[in-house]
Amino acid sequence: MTDARRTALAFAEAQRARFLTEYQDFLRIPSISTDPAHATDIQAAAAWVANHLRTIGISHVEIIPTTRHPVVFGEWSGAGPAARTVLIYGHYDVQPADPLDLWTSDPFTPTLVGDYVHARGASDMKGQVTAVLNGIESALHAGGLPVNLKFLIEGEEEIGSPSMADFISNHRDLLASDFSLNADAGGLVEGIPAIGYALRGLTYYDLTVYGPERDLHSGGYGGVIHNPAQVLCDLVAGMHDASGRVTLPGFYDRVRPLSEEERAELARLPFGDEHFRQQAGVAELWGEAGFSAVERIGARPTLEVNGLLSGFTDEGSKTVLPAKAMAKISMRLVPDQDPREVRSQFLSYLAAHAPATVRWEAKELNAASAVITERSTAEVQALQAALQTVWGVAPVFTRGGGSVPIVADLKQILGIDSVLTGFSQPGDRIHSPNERQHLPNWSRGTDAIIHFLYNLLQ
Amino acid sequence: MTDARRTALAFAEAQRARFLTEYQDFLRIPSISTDPAHATDIQAAAAWVANHLRTIGISHVEIIPTTRHPVVFGEWSGAGPAARTVLIYGHYDVQPADPLDLWTSDPFTPTLVGDYVHARGASDMKGQVTAVLNGIESALHAGGLPVNLKFLIEGEEEIGSPSMADFISNHRDLLASDFSLNADAGGLVEGIPAIGYALRGLTYYDLTVYGPERDLHSGGYGGVIHNPAQVLCDLVAGMHDASGRVTLPGFYDRVRPLSEEERAELARLPFGDEHFRQQAGVAELWGEAGFSAVERIGARPTLEVNGLLSGFTDEGSKTVLPAKAMAKISMRLVPDQDPREVRSQFLSYLAAHAPATVRWEAKELNAASAVITERSTAEVQALQAALQTVWGVAPVFTRGGGSVPIVADLKQILGIDSVLTGFSQPGDRIHSPNERQHLPNWSRGTDAIIHFLYNLLQ
Repeated sequence: MTDARRTALAFAEAQRARFLTEYQDFLRIPSISTDPAHATDIQAAAAWVANHLRTIGISHVEIIPTTRHPVVFGEWSGAGPAARTVLIYGHYDVQPADPLDLWTSDPFTPTLVGDYVHARGASDMKGQVTAVLNGIESALHAGGLPVNLKFLIEGEEEIGSPSMADFISNHRDLLASDFSLNADAGGLVEGIPAIGYALRGLTYYDLTVYGPERDLHSGGYGGVIHNPAQVLCDLVAGMHDASGRVTLPGFYDRVRPLSEEERAELARLPFGDEHFRQQAGVAELWGEAGFSAVERIGARPTLEVNGLLSGFTDEGSKTVLPAKAMAKISMRLVPDQDPREVRSQFLSYLAAHAPATVRWEAKELNAASAVITERSTAEVQALQAALQTVWGVAPVFTRGGGSVPIVADLKQILGIDSVLTGFSQPGDRIHSPNERQHLPNWSRGTDAIIHFLYNLLQ
Repeated sequence: MTDARRTALAFAEAQRARFLTEYQDFLRIPSISTDPAHATDIQAAAAWVANHLRTIGISHVEIIPTTRHPVVFGEWSGAGPAARTVLIYGHYDVQPADPLDLWTSDPFTPTLVGDYVHARGASDMKGQVTAVLNGIESALHAGGLPVNLKFLIEGEEEIGSPSMADFISNHRDLLASDFSLNADAGGLVEGIPAIGYALRGLTYYDLTVYGPERDLHSGGYGGVIHNPAQVLCDLVAGMHDASGRVTLPGFYDRVRPLSEEERAELARLPFGDEHFRQQAGVAELWGEAGFSAVERIGARPTLEVNGLLSGFTDEGSKTVLPAKAMAKISMRLVPDQDPREVRSQFLSYLAAHAPATVRWEAKELNAASAVITERSTAEVQALQAALQTVWGVAPVFTRGGGSVPIVADLKQILGIDSVLTGFSQPGDRIHSPNERQHLPNWSRGTDAIIHFLYNLLQ
């Protein structure tokens, strides 16, 4: 072990009490991004991050306004122009705390309960941000950091990062980096660290079927006019076959098969069907035949109905034959599906199956490709080794079922890959009352970041 | 022609101007039953009807409160205890007038436009009520009325007659009659009077499919959990086969076939597919193979989706996997389907087709049998002859696609058949701006009622 690494780890160990005090200060700021009443707190949280970055030795720090909430940008270029640059991503905003009556302590008064600190944002993601910054502070203190650093700490993650794509587009040079570390993904299993290397893409449509020109009386027209709600149901029903596969023509043509190695890696996760069944509270699982639940979520494309609306939906009975019916339909995409091709497949399906008795319209709301980071890169290997060193167990490599807009934006606009990790645990109740962070894990996260940074030199 | 009949017709002819003045007075009362702001107007309209009944010679008149709006009850028993009793049904309430800006004259200032009077309620149904009462007044004036009369003029028809079933149950003796004349059905074709002798029944269900115990993230669970919105669409899609027939087991077993005579009668209506297509504003019709549109609406059972609701339905995209999905599903029933059997058929279908991955619940909101009045009865024959005499053309016999709660209630609770007619025209814009009544038709209605009453003697 290098002297610098050893020094950094010892520094971190010696500073735990101060780190915790600072973390608690950060947690006291109710930086709820969705609530305009907390605009001042958003500013305060951004200022806290900016000030903290300056304190730990980041030479260039600025708070940059966006159309919504400000970004804290930072840059440390002490490794010199030849060194690679890691972009540290984080967010300082938090979810609302309600329902407040389910909290056992005030959500913005960090409270120690055994090995945990309870507070809104304790895990998501003020705990992750401080764990990473503490590791960087320790490494900077010890000297000899082998990479340059940039920081992009936003205040809109919990509201879907609405202004981040524009922000990144408008600051390409400022943000130019080789790689992004995103600690906003928690561990999936207690005691086993995780590295997320793939996220699914997303296409999202409003599909509307138009029938008669106005709502009709079902007694006067039922059985004569093709009911658009019925047609919509027919169309949706036909989008899956009996084996759970999506029937859009060509939908699976470009799906990258899972390698045996990846399947083996995913199989290490202790998430059998029973886990998902219990989490969702259902009697049985469902899905594409031939794949495990973890494989279906991470590596197989899916099609979901996210919403249905037609006709009369209040209490009671109204005998309307609706003029239109709407479904929100999204597809999760995997490498190497192209959202433009999937759009064509969706439209082809509709054109082939919609009857001539109705009109239909499909409005595309989102279209993002899946992202996948090669696991053989130096950064992924450095993180893998760091996590293994600290936890004493090989991290699991996971493929996320969802999309993370910032990861897609960084890939699409700046061309840089992200790797996702985090030091929270499945039971940390993110977005729920009594959110918490396991403090020994939080400290392990700091140590892992130190190892990660020095591993990059090897 | 009897002297009394001749006298009555001459009286009616002589009183047209006064009849019109009274009709306009009635139209000036904005008796909008759905709007609590018009409670006083409802009272005023009930008082107007009660006063009018007394004026024309109905000996016993009372305004009877209900849990909602009062009923005007009247009785004339001058034909003696051996004579049959006709129950005259009507309603004094009207639909709201909005959108007001589409009216070319004030909706509650009756305005003469050519042969028409424009006002809310002109056609539905203050015009019909006054046409009938004017006929009765004329007959009573001429003397020699061969039947006893009762009157049930309600104030809740436009809000679905919520308290009428209870009212009828609580006043069985008061309302006891042999036959009900309901002039709340308009003509279907300009220049051809109509008699409605059958109405479809109705069963109505809230069908809810329950999936996961809470809304889930579609990225984290899509493709693993059976989406209840998708299951609902599968279930709804399976309720019809490719030929437009309802697939519930046994659904058609008790459907009374149309006789050739009835088919011939319905074929007299000039309502081809093109008529319905244009009225609904669709490219093509749809429905059960082997039947004309008129037959499908009047004499064949149908199943309709009246509403759909699941998940996220606002603007934009939210990647939710919904916890539940709801469809409002109703069936129009024909003789001799039994709503209880249809309920079993619906539940059997669901039990057979709902997958074990979800729970489902079907809540019955309505269950009413179809009603059909024998066309050979003296009252129907009397009405048929009366309409033919006045219009000079044989009335068409129609089967209504909808349900009329009061007709079903009278049949179910009192055991009496209704016959439906009316003197409005298809273009009279009932429930719409610039509602109107064709005044020559309105006068013909009065004459037809006179003939109907005297025909009953023959």
